[in-house]
Amino acid sequence: MIKVTVWNENVQEHGLQFANLDASQPRSEFIRKFLLKSEREIKVVHPNGIHNTLKALFEEEDDIQVRTATLDMPECGLTQEVIDDTDVLVWWAHIAHDRVPDEIVERVHRAILKGMGFIALHSAHQCKPLQRTLGTSGALKWREDDRARVWCCAPTHPIAQGIPESFDLDEEEMYCEFFDIPKPDDLIFISWYKGGEVFRSGCTWTRGMGKIFYFQPGHETQRSYYNPNVRRILKNAVRWAAPVKRISEISCPHAEVSAEAKYAQAKQS
Amino acid sequence: MIKVTVWNENVQEHGLQFANLDASQPRSEFIRKFLLKSEREIKVVHPNGIHNTLKALFEEEDDIQVRTATLDMPECGLTQEVIDDTDVLVWWAHIAHDRVPDEIVERVHRAILKGMGFIALHSAHQCKPLQRTLGTSGALKWREDDRARVWCCAPTHPIAQGIPESFDLDEEEMYCEFFDIPKPDDLIFISWYKGGEVFRSGCTWTRGMGKIFYFQPGHETQRSYYNPNVRRILKNAVRWAAPVKRISEISCPHAEVSAEAKYAQAKQS
Amino acid sequence: MIKVTVWNENVQEHGLQFANLDASQPRSEFIRKFLLKSEREIKVVHPNGIHNTLKALFEEEDDIQVRTATLDMPECGLTQEVIDDTDVLVWWAHIAHDRVPDEIVERVHRAILKGMGFIALHSAHQCKPLQRTLGTSGALKWREDDRARVWCCAPTHPIAQGIPESFDLDEEEMYCEFFDIPKPDDLIFISWYKGGEVFRSGCTWTRGMGKIFYFQPGHETQRSYYNPNVRRILKNAVRWAAPVKRISEISCPHAEVSAEAKYAQAKQS
Amino acid sequence: MIKVTVWNENVQEHGLQFANLDASQPRSEFIRKFLLKSEREIKVVHPNGIHNTLKALFEEEDDIQVRTATLDMPECGLTQEVIDDTDVLVWWAHIAHDRVPDEIVERVHRAILKGMGFIALHSAHQCKPLQRTLGTSGALKWREDDRARVWCCAPTHPIAQGIPESFDLDEEEMYCEFFDIPKPDDLIFISWYKGGEVFRSGCTWTRGMGKIFYFQPGHETQRSYYNPNVRRILKNAVRWAAPVKRISEISCPHAEVSAEAKYAQAKQS
Repeated sequence: MIKVTVWNENVQEHGLQFANLDASQPRSEFIRKFLLKSEREIKVVHPNGIHNTLKALFEEEDDIQVRTATLDMPECGLTQEVIDDTDVLVWWAHIAHDRVPDEIVERVHRAILKGMGFIALHSAHQCKPLQRTLGTSGALKWREDDRARVWCCAPTHPIAQGIPESFDLDEEEMYCEFFDIPKPDDLIFISWYKGGEVFRSGCTWTRGMGKIFYFQPGHETQRSYYNPNVRRILKNAVRWAAPVKRISEISCPHAEVSAEAKYAQAKQS
Repeated sequence: MIKVTVWNENVQEHGLQFANLDASQPRSEFIRKFLLKSEREIKVVHPNGIHNTLKALFEEEDDIQVRTATLDMPECGLTQEVIDDTDVLVWWAHIAHDRVPDEIVERVHRAILKGMGFIALHSAHQCKPLQRTLGTSGALKWREDDRARVWCCAPTHPIAQGIPESFDLDEEEMYCEFFDIPKPDDLIFISWYKGGEVFRSGCTWTRGMGKIFYFQPGHETQRSYYNPNVRRILKNAVRWAAPVKRISEISCPHAEVSAEAKYAQAKQS
Repeated sequence: MIKVTVWNENVQEHGLQFANLDASQPRSEFIRKFLLKSEREIKVVHPNGIHNTLKALFEEEDDIQVRTATLDMPECGLTQEVIDDTDVLVWWAHIAHDRVPDEIVERVHRAILKGMGFIALHSAHQCKPLQRTLGTSGALKWREDDRARVWCCAPTHPIAQGIPESFDLDEEEMYCEFFDIPKPDDLIFISWYKGGEVFRSGCTWTRGMGKIFYFQPGHETQRSYYNPNVRRILKNAVRWAAPVKRISEISCPHAEVSAEAKYAQAKQS
Repeated sequence: MIKVTVWNENVQEHGLQFANLDASQPRSEFIRKFLLKSEREIKVVHPNGIHNTLKALFEEEDDIQVRTATLDMPECGLTQEVIDDTDVLVWWAHIAHDRVPDEIVERVHRAILKGMGFIALHSAHQCKPLQRTLGTSGALKWREDDRARVWCCAPTHPIAQGIPESFDLDEEEMYCEFFDIPKPDDLIFISWYKGGEVFRSGCTWTRGMGKIFYFQPGHETQRSYYNPNVRRILKNAVRWAAPVKRISEISCPHAEVSAEAKYAQAKQS
């Protein structure tokens, strides 16, 4: 049984309610309207929030067990107990990256190095745990409302199993190179957008004992998470990212050890 | 002309002077003795500190211009002005990683993403800028006083030019796998140690516009930086890591942009 | 001075003359018409053959010295003397891959392993030297007459120097994934095509001491080799692929040694 | 059920019988003695030949079904029917690489591109199917009778599951860098040898739809295939290399298509 925790910032789902808008900031009126519009549109696509759409998707599988967690919960819903009980953490976020406390980011990062899988979806390309783990900004270029085609360029990868050589998403946000990421261990998908762009849209990395997958589809107001190929890819990814080896088998601790502590410790023995 | 800044924590060179020893800490007496011993031994090998040994090495080259910076200087000697005037930052550190303020670490990290080369030497495997940039702990196993042989497994790499297929270091500290690093873009050197260990001792990565090289040799009390092959590798590495493209040519900013700021900014145009 | 040999099969340039058409083969009439048409169109774009267009391009550079060789010359123009005097071999081919004798393919392959650079252009994706060196079929999907945009996803690579983040080719043949190649050491360019396709259009590999670059643009009847960005990329590629280390510095011979010979030889010493 | 075919040249097992010694060749007397000695020693370790030692190893697993094939069988035991019925081909060879007909090599190579797994063991580093598939010579340096320690540097890889961070082989042949292979997709093991050498001893690649693993241990007269870690690695490797996707799902054929045939075919539709 693979234990998945789906984390969603769950902000746009609630319009102005969690937005913490500062009326004195230059574009507050614009953002106010954006939030009201996106709340209305998200409700249609994800009536119970993006996290519950994703939860339902994973719950179709007998070998996956799912819980959800959101920004508004104590400790963002990611207490040490929850993290310790998570095999794969799926992360959706967009406009509130900055509100995730650094303490939680460090907790997630440490868990990844110890073997927890981490799947960053769509606008999570700049979420703090991914930036912390990959060390790059995750910056890219983007534009709303485009047509996308996802091409597979690593057909033997476990995440690509059962996926055709390409599939279309009639409505998706456009993301474009240069995508500021480390060279992927495996580049599985490249997306084409009608407007003239390409994007490395499915990428894997390993850090410490943890496996990481970034996947582009999933704009908040569009139906990508109902596409059967996207659903299959996400399920494949969870199985691929699930930890395969316990950290205890490695004698070399992956916790951050200060050099002084290391010195003292090693000399003692 | 390549502008190199050699940074050295410059702590062990001064024995107890900069050690900030807390006499109440369990192993303070042990550490006191270690520092006194290493001060004495370093003085023989690096009479003006490791940074000046490295400075002299790079100054042998007409196309390299060198300055040094140390932990005890204001802002660790790494003011924004110094960083802006640096093509490649060479980093030696060991027992004082934690004393580098996070603000300096972020400054170095941002500069790397914008194209500054970064070369981490020996015990800098766990320095904060490298951990911040690679996202892994840099943990490894180690033991003092071993014999090492450095093998080249990427003979066409620019950093390996002029280097024989292997060379010996009669005295070097042993570092051993598992080395907690991201898969290197290029694995150039693998070291053998007499005691039965191997180590990926010369590794490259690219992050944003910046190139990174880690190189194992350089224990503080041993003479590796006087080895002609090590010297040649360090000079090759500086030339390889020097920035080749200005960030301004890329329209996609690599600075950390919060999603909200990104949103506001993009919508405006 | 980098010594470049530009090899071109030089068949379509001559219409029916070198086509060796077998009138009894099913589609001979179709191919006859195709050859007459392509001869007419190539003459406009490459009045002296594709090899001379490429030769003129490289001759703009003071550090590059160029000769050409074609299929109709004795030993395809690639005698052992020519190969021994070549730093980088640039290869354009399309409809006559099969006419290159295996002996010449082996000669080219051995030279690559010993350090000769090899640049395969456009329809050379299935030329025998590339198949022999990479071990894959080089198969892909294609369609004539599309609009292409070439995106850079490795802006720090030497081959990308001076190239904008993307550039357009208003007329180019479409090549599409899955492209049957080994995972590139560096994926430098990804091409977008108007019809809905993507392609890993600029890829590098190292084999033995030799560096290899594949680059997609260059359909025989279109003007890609006059595009300033394509020209810059090809010149960068020649400089990148030029040998940096002499094979003699490696004690391990890269010639194919039968195990028996190896055994006998090693035991002798 | 994974269908494994273990191929063994099965020559040294029979001393002079299959050796085809040419008495006029310079070192024939030396080789004669070597063959008599190795026959005697192999009989002790592998009483039914190396292929049957490996067969017994895989037969311990319920999900693996094994057949063997040897050089002396018609078509080397690798008829098209056998190949079509093989998920993973395990290859042991040493002194008779040259006796495998090119036709069989091409058959194996085509099967790999279509998805058959291929595991090359020990002195198969220079077998023709591996050279054909990787495009490099596979050359290395070697010496008999050394002590080896195998270190894992990719602990999360499926092939490393259940393997400790290092394990010893008290008697193994020494293989040393530079190992002339393409950069591995994953470098899983690095071996240390008492005499001062290192070797990339466990490497993976993907070619077309096929997965390839090279693993160093397995000298003919030593007991490495009875080591529990080696056994576990080989079983892991077979499961990892088993085909995960049928070629029919890819519309792009991986068979070698001549450009003319490709042209004719594509134009027809």
